[in-house]
Amino acid sequence: MEGKKLKYVKDLVCISCGEKYEPLPTQYLCPKCGEKGILDVEYDYEKIKTDWNKQDLKANPDPSIWRYLPLLPIEPTTPKPTLRVGGTPLYKSKVMAKLLGIETLYLKDDGLNPTGSLKDRASAIAVVKAQEAGMNIVSCASTGNAASSLAGNIASMGNEMKAVIFVPSRAPIGKVTQLLIFGALVLSVKGSYEETFYLSQEAINKRGWYNRNAAINPYLVEGKKTSSIEIAEQLNWEMVDWLVYSVGDGCTIAGAWKGVYDLKQIGFIDKLPKLLGVQSEGCAPITEAFKKGTDLIPVPENTIADSIAVGKPRNYMKAIKAIKESNGDMINVSDQEILDMMKTLGKNTGIFGEPAGVAGIAGIKKAVENGIIKSSESVAVVITGNGLKDIKNAEKAVGAPLTLRPDLKELSQLLNDYNF
Amino acid sequence: MEGKKLKYVKDLVCISCGEKYEPLPTQYLCPKCGEKGILDVEYDYEKIKTDWNKQDLKANPDPSIWRYLPLLPIEPTTPKPTLRVGGTPLYKSKVMAKLLGIETLYLKDDGLNPTGSLKDRASAIAVVKAQEAGMNIVSCASTGNAASSLAGNIASMGNEMKAVIFVPSRAPIGKVTQLLIFGALVLSVKGSYEETFYLSQEAINKRGWYNRNAAINPYLVEGKKTSSIEIAEQLNWEMVDWLVYSVGDGCTIAGAWKGVYDLKQIGFIDKLPKLLGVQSEGCAPITEAFKKGTDLIPVPENTIADSIAVGKPRNYMKAIKAIKESNGDMINVSDQEILDMMKTLGKNTGIFGEPAGVAGIAGIKKAVENGIIKSSESVAVVITGNGLKDIKNAEKAVGAPLTLRPDLKELSQLLNDYNF
Repeated sequence: MEGKKLKYVKDLVCISCGEKYEPLPTQYLCPKCGEKGILDVEYDYEKIKTDWNKQDLKANPDPSIWRYLPLLPIEPTTPKPTLRVGGTPLYKSKVMAKLLGIETLYLKDDGLNPTGSLKDRASAIAVVKAQEAGMNIVSCASTGNAASSLAGNIASMGNEMKAVIFVPSRAPIGKVTQLLIFGALVLSVKGSYEETFYLSQEAINKRGWYNRNAAINPYLVEGKKTSSIEIAEQLNWEMVDWLVYSVGDGCTIAGAWKGVYDLKQIGFIDKLPKLLGVQSEGCAPITEAFKKGTDLIPVPENTIADSIAVGKPRNYMKAIKAIKESNGDMINVSDQEILDMMKTLGKNTGIFGEPAGVAGIAGIKKAVENGIIKSSESVAVVITGNGLKDIKNAEKAVGAPLTLRPDLKELSQLLNDYNF
Repeated sequence: MEGKKLKYVKDLVCISCGEKYEPLPTQYLCPKCGEKGILDVEYDYEKIKTDWNKQDLKANPDPSIWRYLPLLPIEPTTPKPTLRVGGTPLYKSKVMAKLLGIETLYLKDDGLNPTGSLKDRASAIAVVKAQEAGMNIVSCASTGNAASSLAGNIASMGNEMKAVIFVPSRAPIGKVTQLLIFGALVLSVKGSYEETFYLSQEAINKRGWYNRNAAINPYLVEGKKTSSIEIAEQLNWEMVDWLVYSVGDGCTIAGAWKGVYDLKQIGFIDKLPKLLGVQSEGCAPITEAFKKGTDLIPVPENTIADSIAVGKPRNYMKAIKAIKESNGDMINVSDQEILDMMKTLGKNTGIFGEPAGVAGIAGIKKAVENGIIKSSESVAVVITGNGLKDIKNAEKAVGAPLTLRPDLKELSQLLNDYNF
């Protein structure tokens, strides 16, 4: 199906040199610019406006990302993974707003996606694009949510496709287990993440597998953008002042911007939000480049927030461009602030986020303290991954339970001691 | 608010002696019959039929369990936990149907509830009933999904209520962690589960806390019944021939029956399904009592499926009554069959269930082989809990990944060896 016309997509545009390319499923990077030649999907907004409006959307009972089909770079008839990706809840939390020092806060729990993270939104698109490229094997190098979401979405095709996942051998067995449950071919590489990544690239090229390495594949950001589109729809198209995301590779926040940008172009929203990107102090190369206006300098990965621990992010240009266009900002949080926020969020909302999943909320607190976000401004933040994925770090966030013998008197004493 | 009139509830009826009681929030058991005096909520179906129909329901945009309000034993105005409980996806799976030897199979992934299990449906009701009883502390003895769902739903009330959870000290730290993240007061009891349970009962009575021990509280089954009501609605009120659930305490399958029974009474469905209850061979006291027609004999708990490892189930009478009324059956599966099914399900659907969560599906396979379910019959099964809750057992289900050095030649050799 390579080269089949996409109804609403005009071109792929290189964000470095501006060169345009035909939107083929395997047109990953701008050949002229190499790794910096990240491509962006350009839509024909006029055509979309003619064919699609808010009423059509409201009448669509499908809660998944496929309800936004005119804004997705796929052929409508390509078989889709059957998992219900997207449609995650958006909660308004007065208690958390108060704790963060703002008036209005919305929390989107993307940990309730089928495999437990926002990355399902990107992997679902990868599964569709692979088929449009005539390929049934999709591959990536990852130990985390990109891998598990790819493995799960591939599995939902019912044995018609296969995921090949490259992991560095240091990857925790718990994360590898989810991949194996989904029937992925998991290749454990005795080497660093960089070595693992380059082996995957070589194999993908040589074997003709479809590439689900996010920064390289322009279509994956288009899946990720559905998180901000959903927020807009859930807020009845009244956009908040700030959209907040944790930042690793840069793809997710770039996708969030693309989502609201698209909505503005087709007239679904009037106002664009400012973006706040939050990195972990132990691995913040994008914040560094953003603040200093310099090129990106790779750094070590010293943070518990493994889903955003990307020392050499490949999509920093798109991320920085998005945040700047939005008049937004970036901020870093410490591991301790992340651990504290896991507990604060859990206790006040019943949402259990993984470390990278709550880094954004920890960033709001700091941004309010620093005067970046005003207390009168409204904020929405996405919890990007489920805490059940990383119980080990959650253990660090909480204390131990109270211990006692099975004795009512001892219990009474204990409860009195704790003023309960 | 104790004793406030519930619009559509007539009475609580003892399933042992038939005595009727006023539906007070703290009317747990029939005082005459003690532990066997499980109560059942009786509705005024005529009144419901007058006030509510399928069109009303269809027009309701709320995807959560609260869309079924006329069939829930709560006051409409009591504040509800804010987590989006229910509205989990129902997937039709041709591949799994074929593997199980049947024509039509639906899989409901209740692991996508906010805290990762079907038990959110019961805990949400407990949080509402506690408030109607004027209590802000809710307690239970559990290491598993009952506890985490209670802790999460309580937390979502934003610090207005508190969960007190009794766990035996052998409880794995991973499960305790989720409770602590949700801010529950966790009391680790140096004793057996029985000792822990009785200490919780004593404390609940003495302290005036609300009781969320499921078999004792008649309202919790009413929350659980929403899983089968949702299936019915998702199937556009065309009920399948068989509804399949794994069985531990007996409450969940009893709830499933109550759900379809209610729907039949108000004319939303015409046909009632047969129920298949599935226990684990290592802990199957209800199957034993069901098959032999004897009273229940407690047994040890020797199974990896810890969410259904209940040696002394407290709601077996309601479960057996439901299965008999449905002309259904019971069957046991081994731990190995459960582990195999975790892998088969994951690989063919992208759904990752915990051991108890997939026991039902393993039971379908066996029931088809034994001629209990005919290949022409349609089946729906609920995956009751998320596999991320129990990574340790999942590790047992899967093998190890393939290992290699970061070398393309070695990779090619390896892929050839595996005929890939």
